Amino acid sequence: MKILVIGGNSGTIGKSVAGRLSKKHEVITAGRTSGDIQVDINNAESIRQMFASVPDLDAVVCCSGATKWAPFSTMSEDDLYVGIKSKLMGQVNLVRIGKDFVKPGASFTLTSGVLADDPVYMSSNAAMVNGALHSFVKAVAPELANGLRLNVVAPGLVEDSAERLGDAFPGHTPVPMNKVANGYVRSVEGMFTGEVIRIF
Amino acid sequence: MKILVIGGNSGTIGKSVAGRLSKKHEVITAGRTSGDIQVDINNAESIRQMFASVPDLDAVVCCSGATKWAPFSTMSEDDLYVGIKSKLMGQVNLVRIGKDFVKPGASFTLTSGVLADDPVYMSSNAAMVNGALHSFVKAVAPELANGLRLNVVAPGLVEDSAERLGDAFPGHTPVPMNKVANGYVRSVEGMFTGEVIRIF
Repeated sequence: MKILVIGGNSGTIGKSVAGRLSKKHEVITAGRTSGDIQVDINNAESIRQMFASVPDLDAVVCCSGATKWAPFSTMSEDDLYVGIKSKLMGQVNLVRIGKDFVKPGASFTLTSGVLADDPVYMSSNAAMVNGALHSFVKAVAPELANGLRLNVVAPGLVEDSAERLGDAFPGHTPVPMNKVANGYVRSVEGMFTGEVIRIF
Repeated sequence: MKILVIGGNSGTIGKSVAGRLSKKHEVITAGRTSGDIQVDINNAESIRQMFASVPDLDAVVCCSGATKWAPFSTMSEDDLYVGIKSKLMGQVNLVRIGKDFVKPGASFTLTSGVLADDPVYMSSNAAMVNGALHSFVKAVAPELANGLRLNVVAPGLVEDSAERLGDAFPGHTPVPMNKVANGYVRSVEGMFTGEVIRIF
């Protein structure tokens, strides 16, 4: 398969997923400043240009998207829009725009996270964005034409980030990266659609 | 209690909830063009002015918020922002701004809907917004100070709307309005917080 991995050359999860998928597939990575091609997922026109430059995709995987990490009491409206414009609408736009460029039967695999279900202090923006992505995938997967599939992986705190981020996730058991990467492989190589693949 | 019900003089659910709560409480209704006081929940400054004009609230109930109803294949980015700006960020801003105006121990009760869990054709915008609200409430309730509580009611298709809307909700069993109103009463008069109160 020819697979586009957004964030595949930057984030902890993205790099692992791209590495794993590249064992069996042709992987093209995209990122704002790194990767094989450049894209700003906050910008719909940038997404359109990216898809126009990589024809015949069998799968699109997104491991990218920012959210604002802060106490809710200090959040401005603009702070809350950080996650809405990036991790939520960035990924929604990947599907909305990408569906007209990819091959029939192609799949989209987005990334949410454990915070939709088990939030921690300062995670309100990430939580709401992740929850939106879960319901978005359930609602949109059955509407897609041409056999396109759409799933979202919700990773927990990964082992590779546990030392750096673990204090912010009290009592969360770190998940082996290999298990998280399996979630993406299940979506890309599997046959199901509309699923929230919880890996935690 | 002194209770502000946004949408309490307009929508099918809002009117029923306001009527039900007014049997035991002082209810003030707010709406864009109807109600005791006016508010545009899409506008943070309008929300701030509303709260400044009604001091000493014991509870805030929101039964208001628009979403775009259309096939996903026809949705523009602006279409998807209809629900984000209104039903999602309108209600988020009610909590974000209102928390600094209401009485200690006051409650916020928002409205999502069955489409977060059981979407139907053309409901992608409503689904994503409802899902975001569920995770928002879970994440923010434990961060609120001064004993403030925060819940969200997720009503199914209500009996009063079944004739008008039922065809869009195939196989959904209409819920008696009295049962939906009970969900709001449970949040306002109960003691729990951070709950998604599913009534379907």
